[in-house]
Amino acid sequence: MTPGFNDEKNGGGESGNNVLVHNPNLDAMTEDILYHFNLGTATHDLPAMFGDVKFVCVGGSPWRMKAFIEYIGRELGLADPTNEYPNICAGTDRYAMYKVGPVLSVSHGMGIPSIAIMLHELIKLLYHARCTDVTVVRIGTSGGIGLKPGTVVITKQSVDASFLPRFEQVILGKPVVRSTELDSDLAEELQQYSKDFDDFETVIANTMCTMDFYEGQARLDGAFCSYTEEDKQNYLKEAYAAGVRNIEMESSVFAAMCKLSGVRAAVVCVTLLDRQKGDQLTSSHDILQSYQQRPQMLVGHFIKRRLNAMDKGYPSSRDTDKAKSS
Amino acid sequence: MTPGFNDEKNGGGESGNNVLVHNPNLDAMTEDILYHFNLGTATHDLPAMFGDVKFVCVGGSPWRMKAFIEYIGRELGLADPTNEYPNICAGTDRYAMYKVGPVLSVSHGMGIPSIAIMLHELIKLLYHARCTDVTVVRIGTSGGIGLKPGTVVITKQSVDASFLPRFEQVILGKPVVRSTELDSDLAEELQQYSKDFDDFETVIANTMCTMDFYEGQARLDGAFCSYTEEDKQNYLKEAYAAGVRNIEMESSVFAAMCKLSGVRAAVVCVTLLDRQKGDQLTSSHDILQSYQQRPQMLVGHFIKRRLNAMDKGYPSSRDTDKAKSS
Repeated sequence: MTPGFNDEKNGGGESGNNVLVHNPNLDAMTEDILYHFNLGTATHDLPAMFGDVKFVCVGGSPWRMKAFIEYIGRELGLADPTNEYPNICAGTDRYAMYKVGPVLSVSHGMGIPSIAIMLHELIKLLYHARCTDVTVVRIGTSGGIGLKPGTVVITKQSVDASFLPRFEQVILGKPVVRSTELDSDLAEELQQYSKDFDDFETVIANTMCTMDFYEGQARLDGAFCSYTEEDKQNYLKEAYAAGVRNIEMESSVFAAMCKLSGVRAAVVCVTLLDRQKGDQLTSSHDILQSYQQRPQMLVGHFIKRRLNAMDKGYPSSRDTDKAKSS
Repeated sequence: MTPGFNDEKNGGGESGNNVLVHNPNLDAMTEDILYHFNLGTATHDLPAMFGDVKFVCVGGSPWRMKAFIEYIGRELGLADPTNEYPNICAGTDRYAMYKVGPVLSVSHGMGIPSIAIMLHELIKLLYHARCTDVTVVRIGTSGGIGLKPGTVVITKQSVDASFLPRFEQVILGKPVVRSTELDSDLAEELQQYSKDFDDFETVIANTMCTMDFYEGQARLDGAFCSYTEEDKQNYLKEAYAAGVRNIEMESSVFAAMCKLSGVRAAVVCVTLLDRQKGDQLTSSHDILQSYQQRPQMLVGHFIKRRLNAMDKGYPSSRDTDKAKSS
């Protein structure tokens, strides 16, 4: 039952940090089919397709992840003149994947099981492609607690519905507890860059990750609700006291799996409403859309600065100015 | 903490079974926004749009649910001559929804949290639309245990990773256990209709519902694997001994929520492989596609027979013949 660590595939010539898998079976397989991506080691040259990836951004919505690749393509001066980015997973409707330069953008659907399938296959993809020094950021939406709607939260710790920083993975019918620790340096770095954006607040705080959007988050507007408004408010107060400032549905397994695979990881979510004031998303479509762009802008700015620091020669027009956020 | 039962909306004039919500807050809301469907009571006339729905088919993949509505439209003789079914949820990429006559087809993504969000909003939709006598069927894919790939499994009981027929819903941070009982008469009826299909087997058996596709289902080909082939085979043998013949990721919360809302529900999944013989989906695209059509054909046949029995005047060309399954 000892995990196998497969971290020697890059050979001795490279000094970067590899993406780790912990599965002694993988190297013995003649072919690895990444079923939900419609990709595979026998059918695709994964090192050629993905070997240069340094940043992976993931988010629930396929449309948002397409918008992100268009945005970052423009920001990095790598935009396709036709602005058409093919969906690399076009053969399936499970996930959507786009790439420009060293940036990969992948959708993950909603909830822990959906993102977990994607992350298993993403980690194997990065491993097979022999990627090094990869940073993975989840950009998402969330409900806020005690924050002005539109505030961006960089996750300090991802906690469960009891406010504990743990993710329970069931293996062979038995629960195995995993740490949901994220990279604190990366979180700090992102917060530093957030100061370049004048028109929204960014905070570092705990994020509660739930299994459900309605009863699991104490909403009063689901098909079923067996608790009172007072019960809800008390629960949100307890969460607030535990340092929780936003609630979403993927961060715990994201943190746990990224940590196991040795990639630097961060979670950057915008709050669409203050849950202490309501449950329904009543803001206009345009306002909600503009909120959703904020994590994209912050993470895009971070990627650009990082690439410039790595002296890759990408354009740096925005580096000396205040970043524009509109 | 007593649940409110909202089941009187149809008034005294109708005798059908209503779709129940258990939320005393709903009737007091001036507007109910079904956010992940991009529908709402103030913006859409839900009774006019959905009041005639008698059958709802749900499945993970939006493409498959589009294919299903095209199939059932043809089968019921209700096909749009252009064969174009607009996506009712076109304003969002979270779920896709299609309708023809009394049949609604909705995608739910992968995993319990994703289908749970959809079901909360679907149950509220059916309630607001004042639908009666609704049957909901999940048509999906699964891994089989000890069955020939392509076999269809009608779920008797949905069990968890410990083989218990229960679903744990966390509410205000505390677990609440719900029954995953499905309608046994409906399962039997579906199995009777399956005899009209010569070229595949259909069985009634238990279905294991897991939180994860890789480690949660004892696969050996994930990014992480801390157990041996022998551990895996022993776990699958235990599952088999508990009556489990297939494994998927949504049936438990589907059964629990349908039971709470008083709708008749069934789970009909095809097995894409025998997990005792492997983990990877190595069958050709065409074979996997043909397998995925089997639950659609069986449920389509069932709907057609039911509608004929209800004397709705839908075509009955296939009723006296053996159903064709190709």
